[in-house]
Amino acid sequence: MISVVIIGSGNVAQHLISAFVKSETVDVIQVFSRNLDADIKNFEASKITNDFEQLKEADLYIISVTDTAVHAVSNQIPFEKKLVVHTSGSVAISELNEKNKRGVFYPLQTFSKNKSVDFSEIPICIEAENETDYQLLEKVGKSISEKIFNINSEQRKALHVAAVFSCNFVNHLYAIGNKICDENEIPFEILQPLIIETANKIKTLTPVEAQTGPAKRNDTQTINAHLNFLQETTQKEIYKILTKSIIDNGKKL
Amino acid sequence: MISVVIIGSGNVAQHLISAFVKSETVDVIQVFSRNLDADIKNFEASKITNDFEQLKEADLYIISVTDTAVHAVSNQIPFEKKLVVHTSGSVAISELNEKNKRGVFYPLQTFSKNKSVDFSEIPICIEAENETDYQLLEKVGKSISEKIFNINSEQRKALHVAAVFSCNFVNHLYAIGNKICDENEIPFEILQPLIIETANKIKTLTPVEAQTGPAKRNDTQTINAHLNFLQETTQKEIYKILTKSIIDNGKKL
Repeated sequence: MISVVIIGSGNVAQHLISAFVKSETVDVIQVFSRNLDADIKNFEASKITNDFEQLKEADLYIISVTDTAVHAVSNQIPFEKKLVVHTSGSVAISELNEKNKRGVFYPLQTFSKNKSVDFSEIPICIEAENETDYQLLEKVGKSISEKIFNINSEQRKALHVAAVFSCNFVNHLYAIGNKICDENEIPFEILQPLIIETANKIKTLTPVEAQTGPAKRNDTQTINAHLNFLQETTQKEIYKILTKSIIDNGKKL
Repeated sequence: MISVVIIGSGNVAQHLISAFVKSETVDVIQVFSRNLDADIKNFEASKITNDFEQLKEADLYIISVTDTAVHAVSNQIPFEKKLVVHTSGSVAISELNEKNKRGVFYPLQTFSKNKSVDFSEIPICIEAENETDYQLLEKVGKSISEKIFNINSEQRKALHVAAVFSCNFVNHLYAIGNKICDENEIPFEILQPLIIETANKIKTLTPVEAQTGPAKRNDTQTINAHLNFLQETTQKEIYKILTKSIIDNGKKL
């Protein structure tokens, strides 16, 4: 068994603990939580500490705290030459104190409290400073997920930007669609099957192949009708720039 | 049984025919296809005509052709006072020749050839000029789908704009995410579970409630790091306007 100490008791930490409890490779021997009363599902309260000096020796320390706290927390680990990783998408490996061996163990998914997730489907992005550490992290990752990727800090930065476009911005476009529906007394649920199909399509087609709509067809009549329809300046601007980008993209092919 | 003649043999027409064949309420007695050799699945070749003068009398004529051809095709129907509908999202009911009773029967989904769809989940938007016609269309719709909506031509125009934001533009953001991944040698599949979760989330939360990311948190440090990372002018502009829109939206709440 690989012994692991988890530092943090937030969403990601809790989901990791629940996943590791079912694993036959990993033994979570201790959890650090500032709040000793943290109700950690599937974990014995007696194994929780709020004192860094009480941290046990383990094969791996996983820091799962707010991005801005990763550096300070890594300074407080009272060991040297141990393997210490964080779980953040936007923090470089170099933010970890170099007295220990450093790595990243980043599960790419949105975690919500009280909503269990199927960890086996969640991609885990791993980074380490040497091959031995990488192999250990890979073993830990494979004990809970089928999808392990070797992603360095530069790539993780790019991945984060790509995720903002493909998820955060996408959700905002849903919000605009929702608003237009509300203003015209159309139930937003009419669009939901199409939204799901749009997301599912890119499992088998590239997004460029899957592109449809008036911009793709360069259908200026419909585009102008839509621009006339839109009254809000920001919505109009978003419509224009995304239409331009789709048309320009088509020309490049 | 309600007798139906379908005019057209494209994707939507073919999917409708396949769905109606299984229905116990609707009998597709004839299909009009310019090309008599059109291979229409689940439909007898002998019931296909390419001559408008040979059209049979029926309770309902469904015109399922390219948007720009709807008007001309409706002129060629050799009957009067029959119920004639089209299946287009962006054509007004008034485009149909007024010698007949007019309506719209618009299934809102992307149809691909050779990919069967579960019609029961597809929303069908119905419009008619009187209650009797509406009820007939509703009966026809309910024979293949559980989701029937009363949507007039003005609403359908708004719905089309909302669909462009929530589906066509969304797909383009996937394309940008894909491009950023490719340029950084990251497999795009890493993002797919997150993309699916983002689409699924809005079944239970409104998109405004589901919003996450640096813009939502007004995290200017991350936003600036991302803008520095992006090199393409159009990508930068899209990032800026969507970030601004998310921040402005937050202020309104």
